[in-house]
Amino acid sequence: MSLSTHTQGETVPTVPPATPAVDTAEVTALLERGRTLTTPVLKAAVDRLAPPMDTVAAYHFGWIDALGNPADGDGGKAVRPALALLSAEAAGMPPETGVPGAVAVELVHNFSLLHDDLMDGDEQRRHRDTVWKVHGPAQAILVGDALFALANELLLELGTVEAGRATRRLTAASRKLIDGQAQDISYEHRERVTVEECLAMEGNKTGALLACACSIGAVLGGADERTADTLEAYGYHLGLAFQAVDDLLGIWGDPESTGKQTWSDLRQRKKSLPVVAALAAGGPASEKLGELLAADAKSPDFDAFSEEEFATRAALIEEAGGREWTAQEARRQHAVAVEALHRVEMPQRVRDQLTALADFVVVRRR
Amino acid sequence: MSLSTHTQGETVPTVPPATPAVDTAEVTALLERGRTLTTPVLKAAVDRLAPPMDTVAAYHFGWIDALGNPADGDGGKAVRPALALLSAEAAGMPPETGVPGAVAVELVHNFSLLHDDLMDGDEQRRHRDTVWKVHGPAQAILVGDALFALANELLLELGTVEAGRATRRLTAASRKLIDGQAQDISYEHRERVTVEECLAMEGNKTGALLACACSIGAVLGGADERTADTLEAYGYHLGLAFQAVDDLLGIWGDPESTGKQTWSDLRQRKKSLPVVAALAAGGPASEKLGELLAADAKSPDFDAFSEEEFATRAALIEEAGGREWTAQEARRQHAVAVEALHRVEMPQRVRDQLTALADFVVVRRR
Repeated sequence: MSLSTHTQGETVPTVPPATPAVDTAEVTALLERGRTLTTPVLKAAVDRLAPPMDTVAAYHFGWIDALGNPADGDGGKAVRPALALLSAEAAGMPPETGVPGAVAVELVHNFSLLHDDLMDGDEQRRHRDTVWKVHGPAQAILVGDALFALANELLLELGTVEAGRATRRLTAASRKLIDGQAQDISYEHRERVTVEECLAMEGNKTGALLACACSIGAVLGGADERTADTLEAYGYHLGLAFQAVDDLLGIWGDPESTGKQTWSDLRQRKKSLPVVAALAAGGPASEKLGELLAADAKSPDFDAFSEEEFATRAALIEEAGGREWTAQEARRQHAVAVEALHRVEMPQRVRDQLTALADFVVVRRR
Repeated sequence: MSLSTHTQGETVPTVPPATPAVDTAEVTALLERGRTLTTPVLKAAVDRLAPPMDTVAAYHFGWIDALGNPADGDGGKAVRPALALLSAEAAGMPPETGVPGAVAVELVHNFSLLHDDLMDGDEQRRHRDTVWKVHGPAQAILVGDALFALANELLLELGTVEAGRATRRLTAASRKLIDGQAQDISYEHRERVTVEECLAMEGNKTGALLACACSIGAVLGGADERTADTLEAYGYHLGLAFQAVDDLLGIWGDPESTGKQTWSDLRQRKKSLPVVAALAAGGPASEKLGELLAADAKSPDFDAFSEEEFATRAALIEEAGGREWTAQEARRQHAVAVEALHRVEMPQRVRDQLTALADFVVVRRR
């Protein structure tokens, strides 16, 4: 295990050696296509909401600012819509077949963001105040509920057997998403969380909906259950790789790129993968980290901790092997995801593009 | 219009003259059958939730107390399950066909109660502390979300075309429920709400899900869309009658029966039907009421108001005709509901039982 410590902001790759070479232009084009095809449908869906929910949702998506003026906000990376369109193509259909699925997945994703930000007391998302901060807790609850309902409405009004199957998969993913948030909340109150518990939580919170994004286009295009399941396996492991990278960025990410504070996850006392892996590793650094974090949990001064105090904890996580273990876990999940792609018959171009997106997920800096 | 004033607790019928004679034994048996057939399935569904959500939900449904000990709580009147089973029978199917629909409707109803109690800051429901008071806001949000997802899961796992149609109707009803809560919240901040706005809000908040309860069994039993729509019309108007009676009970109900405080809706400044009808009526009592309520909205002493102060407002609402108008509205909606039953071909016994439930809704005291 690597015992060297990197300071925050140093330009080391997120996931060091053996990272795949990413075709950046191709990934950019795929993400852009996802946004272009789904945003108008997403906007039309949000327009169905009764006032003031339509305005609150438009604020959340970054289309308007807190005063109601048009804005060109950062709508996020939009990995899910890109995947949903490729999912339709994997079943031999045009990307447009996946659009209602892409929009439904985005609606469920944003339902969970609205509710999670309120439950977690998070005041900022994508460099902006969260909905509950600007419009109050009731609107965050209400608009979250409305987006969740809208997701099912959009799919079911297609009126096809395929849409029913897609809604069933989306509902299963939503339930896992909610389970994951329940686990996340309960872990906050516990001193120790095992690596297995953390992976199970991340599989629910991130893996399940990414899995659904990767199957929903194919399901809408008439793919059989086995194909859909295998595409879900790709998406699930991609989601775990995605989350492992997120956990690395949450500690060692560059605030300029991530839009988060330095040592963000440490400030929030998150029991993310690098932390639980470091605690599970044993050895002097692991033990020292365990003692520090146990003391931190009771410390009245925690909110006034300096950069150096967080840097010490990050260095111990790294020394205990938590950073390297998490980077390896990202690569391992990436490999399992890509392997699944070879168990589904699909046009080679689509397989290459799904592989490129998987590569992007593990090397991204934000 | 009646100009006599009744004091709270006086034993006048909720909806005076021309109330139907209710076959109490039949209604009791129908409600009991609804509970007996749906509660085990509802409990099994709640058991699917990951801890601690299963426990929180069991508390909400009154199956356990705040300490986790078994309880035999008041699960409510259970009108919706009774209607969903009769809905299946209206389509010529056994009542059991309606069970997944009955459970799904109950899950959506309770999702909305969990979220609404938190948004409205209501601390008591059915004589017990609400979930957010006992288990915190995050659990109220999370378990509400989980019950909403579970409702769709239960229906969609039936895997039939009918289940897809039922889910679509339930989703449409859920969206209206959310719209209704959004309207209710926005009306709290307004000085005047028209009778039409109040009826539209109540149609969304109460009518839509009762409508769905009345069609969902038939849809699961394979009824055509016209039959389902007509059963929904019965349920929608029954819901409006139900809410009009609720609004009467919210002011003049006997606390012993309703489990609410005296003058409950006046204490909460609710712009319910009797209030908006009284304000819209014009005349001296209406004007005096308008002046009082406008002053109340700004009064720092409102929370310390005596019984007499609320009694004065209730008497003005009655003098302006708000009580009588609402009672008439309940009867009018009841009549429209019952009329719809005659536009659907169904066994006469089922029509009689649906009529008996409609009669019960307008004469109930709780």
